Amino acid sequence: MACCGMCVCCHCCCRDGETRTPEELAILGEIHDEEDEILPRKDYESLDYDRCINEPYVEVLEGTDNKKAKKYEAVRWIMVFAIGVTVGLVGLFVDFFVRLFSKIKFSVVGDSVEECAEKGCLPLSLLELLAFNMFFVFIASVLVLIEPVAAGSGIPEIKSYLNGVKIPGIVRLRTFLCKATGVLFTVAGGMFVGKEGPMIHSGAIVGAGLPQFQSISFKKIKFDFPHFRSDRDKRDFVSAGAAAGVAAAFGAPIGGTLFSLEEGSSFWNQGLTWKVLFCSMSATFTLNFFRSGIMFNMWGSFQQPGLLNFGEFKCPDGDKKCHLWTAVDLAFFVLMGVVGGLLGALFNCLNKCLAKYRIRHIHPKAKFIRVLESLLVIMVTTVVIFAASMLLGECRDLAFPTPHNTTSGGEDINSTIRQFFCKNNTYNDMATLFFNPQEVAIRQLLHQDGTFSPATLSIFVLLYFLLACWTYGASVPSGLFVPALLCGAAFGRLVANLLNVNLGMDIYSGTYALIGAAAFLGGVVRMTISLTVILIESTNEITYGLPIMITLMVAKWTGDFFNKGIYDIHIELRGVPLLEWETEVEMDKLTASDIMEPNLTYVYPHTRVQSLVSILRTTVYHAFPVVTENRQNERDFMKGNILVSNNIRFKKSSVMSRAGEQRRRCQSMKSYPSSELRNVCDEQNAVVEPAEEGEDLLQQMLERRHAPYPNLYPDQSPSEEWTMEERFRPLTFHGLILRSQLVNLLISGVCYAESQSSATQPRLSYAEMTEDYPRYPDIHDVDLTLLNPHMIVDVTPYMNPSPYIVSPNTRVSQVFNLFRTMGLRHLPVVNAVGEIVGIITRHNLTHEFLEAKLRQHNITF
Amino acid sequence: MACCGMCVCCHCCCRDGETRTPEELAILGEIHDEEDEILPRKDYESLDYDRCINEPYVEVLEGTDNKKAKKYEAVRWIMVFAIGVTVGLVGLFVDFFVRLFSKIKFSVVGDSVEECAEKGCLPLSLLELLAFNMFFVFIASVLVLIEPVAAGSGIPEIKSYLNGVKIPGIVRLRTFLCKATGVLFTVAGGMFVGKEGPMIHSGAIVGAGLPQFQSISFKKIKFDFPHFRSDRDKRDFVSAGAAAGVAAAFGAPIGGTLFSLEEGSSFWNQGLTWKVLFCSMSATFTLNFFRSGIMFNMWGSFQQPGLLNFGEFKCPDGDKKCHLWTAVDLAFFVLMGVVGGLLGALFNCLNKCLAKYRIRHIHPKAKFIRVLESLLVIMVTTVVIFAASMLLGECRDLAFPTPHNTTSGGEDINSTIRQFFCKNNTYNDMATLFFNPQEVAIRQLLHQDGTFSPATLSIFVLLYFLLACWTYGASVPSGLFVPALLCGAAFGRLVANLLNVNLGMDIYSGTYALIGAAAFLGGVVRMTISLTVILIESTNEITYGLPIMITLMVAKWTGDFFNKGIYDIHIELRGVPLLEWETEVEMDKLTASDIMEPNLTYVYPHTRVQSLVSILRTTVYHAFPVVTENRQNERDFMKGNILVSNNIRFKKSSVMSRAGEQRRRCQSMKSYPSSELRNVCDEQNAVVEPAEEGEDLLQQMLERRHAPYPNLYPDQSPSEEWTMEERFRPLTFHGLILRSQLVNLLISGVCYAESQSSATQPRLSYAEMTEDYPRYPDIHDVDLTLLNPHMIVDVTPYMNPSPYIVSPNTRVSQVFNLFRTMGLRHLPVVNAVGEIVGIITRHNLTHEFLEAKLRQHNITF
Repeated sequence: MACCGMCVCCHCCCRDGETRTPEELAILGEIHDEEDEILPRKDYESLDYDRCINEPYVEVLEGTDNKKAKKYEAVRWIMVFAIGVTVGLVGLFVDFFVRLFSKIKFSVVGDSVEECAEKGCLPLSLLELLAFNMFFVFIASVLVLIEPVAAGSGIPEIKSYLNGVKIPGIVRLRTFLCKATGVLFTVAGGMFVGKEGPMIHSGAIVGAGLPQFQSISFKKIKFDFPHFRSDRDKRDFVSAGAAAGVAAAFGAPIGGTLFSLEEGSSFWNQGLTWKVLFCSMSATFTLNFFRSGIMFNMWGSFQQPGLLNFGEFKCPDGDKKCHLWTAVDLAFFVLMGVVGGLLGALFNCLNKCLAKYRIRHIHPKAKFIRVLESLLVIMVTTVVIFAASMLLGECRDLAFPTPHNTTSGGEDINSTIRQFFCKNNTYNDMATLFFNPQEVAIRQLLHQDGTFSPATLSIFVLLYFLLACWTYGASVPSGLFVPALLCGAAFGRLVANLLNVNLGMDIYSGTYALIGAAAFLGGVVRMTISLTVILIESTNEITYGLPIMITLMVAKWTGDFFNKGIYDIHIELRGVPLLEWETEVEMDKLTASDIMEPNLTYVYPHTRVQSLVSILRTTVYHAFPVVTENRQNERDFMKGNILVSNNIRFKKSSVMSRAGEQRRRCQSMKSYPSSELRNVCDEQNAVVEPAEEGEDLLQQMLERRHAPYPNLYPDQSPSEEWTMEERFRPLTFHGLILRSQLVNLLISGVCYAESQSSATQPRLSYAEMTEDYPRYPDIHDVDLTLLNPHMIVDVTPYMNPSPYIVSPNTRVSQVFNLFRTMGLRHLPVVNAVGEIVGIITRHNLTHEFLEAKLRQHNITF
Repeated sequence: MACCGMCVCCHCCCRDGETRTPEELAILGEIHDEEDEILPRKDYESLDYDRCINEPYVEVLEGTDNKKAKKYEAVRWIMVFAIGVTVGLVGLFVDFFVRLFSKIKFSVVGDSVEECAEKGCLPLSLLELLAFNMFFVFIASVLVLIEPVAAGSGIPEIKSYLNGVKIPGIVRLRTFLCKATGVLFTVAGGMFVGKEGPMIHSGAIVGAGLPQFQSISFKKIKFDFPHFRSDRDKRDFVSAGAAAGVAAAFGAPIGGTLFSLEEGSSFWNQGLTWKVLFCSMSATFTLNFFRSGIMFNMWGSFQQPGLLNFGEFKCPDGDKKCHLWTAVDLAFFVLMGVVGGLLGALFNCLNKCLAKYRIRHIHPKAKFIRVLESLLVIMVTTVVIFAASMLLGECRDLAFPTPHNTTSGGEDINSTIRQFFCKNNTYNDMATLFFNPQEVAIRQLLHQDGTFSPATLSIFVLLYFLLACWTYGASVPSGLFVPALLCGAAFGRLVANLLNVNLGMDIYSGTYALIGAAAFLGGVVRMTISLTVILIESTNEITYGLPIMITLMVAKWTGDFFNKGIYDIHIELRGVPLLEWETEVEMDKLTASDIMEPNLTYVYPHTRVQSLVSILRTTVYHAFPVVTENRQNERDFMKGNILVSNNIRFKKSSVMSRAGEQRRRCQSMKSYPSSELRNVCDEQNAVVEPAEEGEDLLQQMLERRHAPYPNLYPDQSPSEEWTMEERFRPLTFHGLILRSQLVNLLISGVCYAESQSSATQPRLSYAEMTEDYPRYPDIHDVDLTLLNPHMIVDVTPYMNPSPYIVSPNTRVSQVFNLFRTMGLRHLPVVNAVGEIVGIITRHNLTHEFLEAKLRQHNITF
């Protein structure tokens, strides 16, 4: 089946790198209209993880001593603790209601089935079940209509966010409410979805929102605590929140931390990691505390780690020959990894086709169509569950309850079997799997000593696989972990059955079920480090480390042979410009100058308001390099033109020379006894004055031999008649300024009149600059009549004067590393004499773009 | 006691930041001769983690396709697997012999004691024990005489190495042999040391050595596999090896990985982390496999995770009211964390004084004095052990063996009690702790239901604390984890006794012992993330996560109030310029120009052999910026001087202009249909030719207005009579070249005669450049008679043309981040017009240096 399905869909989703047509080729005129391909969209912005240390920030800094810094640090610790506790409570809320609703549903329907089995009124039971399920799912999908971003698992979105891409609406309070409530109803409604993905998303929103003390959705929520309102702090807290989400979902605090690192992955930040781990711990143990209290009335103890836990794997006490696994089993685990990888690839393949179909045929239509689709899915699912349980189940003997059959919570595994139509001490195996919450079904597969028939398991895997694949991507909040684990566990149990019965091997079935679950889940999501650790922590058994890791490794390698992980596929379908872990070795044939964007829109240190407005209104760039020109005859320009002379003066003062620096150092050392340095310093009185020299040096640089360029003023806008020389004239790079900062300056009236000195310009504090975070005003909303177009703005105090830069011949791997590691948004490319030659952004580093550039490079050389 | 000790030694080790006198002030003439302070030594080199992408490397790169890259990747996987297995085997070797020797020793001495108790010949037994112990320790300390680096735990060294400091001899095969064999004898000799630290060190050496296929110690070991011979690859493999060491020592593969990350901490490298985890897993399970096979004859099963494991924590099956810990206990854990932190600080304090004493009074003397000191330590230890066991022990009732008293290995906890002088069914509690291997004693404290008397525990903690403190730092291989755990566990058990008996609380003593162990260990070593995870994994009980983490956090914070962690103290005493995690907020008042080294020794792109030799022989720098000068009248210089004109020509060709780049792009787009870009490109025929234009543009830059500088040739060496202007004249930065590369060029005869073109210079391949790794020849060993001093060397193909650079006004935190994250060795500071103004190395970023600079800054402003 796997093979056949592979063929059916391989035209639409198997790797087709070579036929891809990135925007790069579009520019060059080679436009292939393959509608299959979705390319990174330019309208996704990067987050600003790098700190912009401009003058307002330095002011704040100068006022900060270590004591104040420690206070902020303490607030940070309190915040991560608060996030952890909140995420734990959210988990508790979701879990409590899911259990409540499921319990009501299954007991009503179960009773009805037992009754009807005798009376022969089964269709009535089916209708009851249908009514429950469709009602719940209807609520969930209406919630998603309110906030469309709440659909799906949320992991692709959080992954993108941690990768550094701003996705609108993803961390808003409204999204949180829709997601957390929605997932509760989808799970209670019996859809084949998990609540783990949405938990992670909810956790991330809590992390983003809580330390802001304000909400965009509900304007009334706004406290006067203006700290942590920057992309950097927000992303750090989102890391913590997402980790707490994982920790609450799986009871895996270390796994959660590694998940954040794996996806977030800026430089390894010791302090942050430590806080993230603390946040995860808080979430796990908050949840644990309340669940132990509420469910077992054991307040103060900690018995219930995560929402999902696999129970305890343990050999019967007396049995010395029983092993959870042996070296021989490892070979089978590798094979299961291969099969899991193949199944996962097939799953992703089918789901990708489906997602494309949805994008093309469902999303453009009226919104209620999506609700109808969700209802259709649940209808089919319900009928299948019901029919399979009634018609296809076998009656199997019940194993007697042994001590190790109790899970850690003290719950007897045999209490959750379903007996439909079977006589005492036997149970209906299909119903036990289908007519239980999925977590319970997983535990049955892991720990039930009684057997499931191979036929039942095969049918179950097939049905579940197809239905789960259809479900993921429907317009409801829906996780993928639990369905994948359940489907995989059934597959693993099937293998165990075959080995046990047909080959007579002495194996521990639970381990095989676990490995099967890991193999399939790994094949679908292709996560590595964090998934390994999450699964180890969920089983609470360190000795499973090696088999789980090997299985996941093999599954990932097998799956990667065919396509990407499911989350990456969905990220790609949204056109998010995600940056991979590292570039391929081949890409190092390219340099920064090959991939940079050479068409720059720039501003001068001193610019007229009218020029700024025109630049802001006619371009879409999010940052502008601040530059000065290398011209001759600057003396002439300066005469009578305050703007030009201000710019030239800024340039003079900003170029630090070695001699100048040496002189400065000497000044500050004057009082010290002589040393080697003193000898150098003594000379200073003999030479010219610093200021004079600086001017002089610059003068030398400025004076040129050739005929002048056309007589242009720096605030003149580019003209169509310029020659290429003029258009690409050398520009000395001084710093970067963001669009939001420029708009802010204009709105706040930061400018000075031509007749005044630039020192008269009003100053904005750091708080005023960041007041409107995260949603800065748009230039098109600014009332232009309030601005005096002839005033001059001095942008130098507000620009970032020292962004990271690279030289044009830097290799792509180095550029990529710097960009990704430091969480940059714009990376200027500056040549050996300090002139800017281009800018690199996230879009210049996506896999698609690099591949196109490499192809071009290979053609040229 | 803690308080009193604190006073005694606080004059010598509590934080005295303000009175510190870094080298900076020494330069300024303010030399305070406080002999207490050891400052970072200049002679430690940094590792080169950054890739140098010069022409030979690019050649290799161009020959590398993705297939070849995949092959190398596969070799890497095989290597990490091999490292893991080898480390596992090393652990097995050490463990096996320790067990063997200990068993022989304890059975011989134990029998003798039992016998002599009746006959009254106890002094004879003591002599037997002394003979055993002193013999073993003698061997160990002789081994350390052979290779002094093998002394101590090795963790400070590995921490420094992973931090990016080259420490001579630290990863050599000889060190490995001495360390692995030595630790076996110290542990078997009954010293209060652990084998965990040395295991980590051994693992790191295996990681460094195995993929090199050669050895410096044993020249015969050399295979022809020249890959991975670079600092970058080596450090990656060392990370993996160290992680494997932790994994084998504690059975904690995830903890090991996090240890590597916490200490290594360059950017979060997904691929590397995944390999490190795999390596750790391999080590754990290799050890596990063989131990299970050898010790229990259960080949193929995996029952014995690490060298150290804490056994299984479990409530008796029937007891529903028993909890491992409850919310109430957490409050006590916090208090224990505080006490652990205080004890740890005291321990570090005493040990620091001792270490200073050793440095001043023992190390300068003849080497055998060190052996004598070790023998003295073991003599005192043995006598104390013996006397305490015989005289101070109490006879306690034995608890009946219950099922949960068996540790995971099936070993009965009651089999390791000591009955000395006590009647049946009672045991001597002091002897049980002292007369057992330390791991066994720890398990006794964690799992023995029978009690230890408070008096015994108090005496044990006191004696053990003092002796362990004395031992650490003696000239034998000695870890600190196990002693700290044992001492802490006894303290925890003491607390549990008090709470249980005096307050009548219903608590689980094992948990308190565990938390006590964590508290003391945390107070001593101050590790955070990795230690938490290591302990969680060692207990194999995820629910201990929260208490362990909270305890470690509190212990660290308490301890940090007084002094640094023990490893950091020893690193400081060695004067290693370690880089912390991040800079303090206050440091951001400084910029790159404040901390850089402005006195540069530089080379030109084309330099005469004689200049190179003179620079190399008269300076100690490890890298030189490659620069050109900004002079006027360069045309005149060029005439008749091939050297100068070559340099000027290089400069011209290396400055990329926007117009030039645009033209290049247009060239490669010629064949494509028109677009926006085309319009720009069309103009190109109208304007001057690229080469011509480049020259022209440069000419403009070069021509100056003022009177000429003294008529200097660029290859003239600096003269004392130069003015400051001349001495610090502007230099355009083009790249960095390492000392080793220059020496290599000289030796290989890479140069050309004045009459020839630079293209005639012989070319070295990448393999030839890196042939001598890791020990490159010294310039003083080069036979100068073989060199023609008038030949010219073109260094441009071999320099790193695109190192990361920063601008002079970059804030220190940003500089620090870039430097630490990217693992740099030299960071040039380049101003807005591309002139180099200084260089930043590791020494400019150490805490001491920054603090001195900040003080200076605060004085000035």
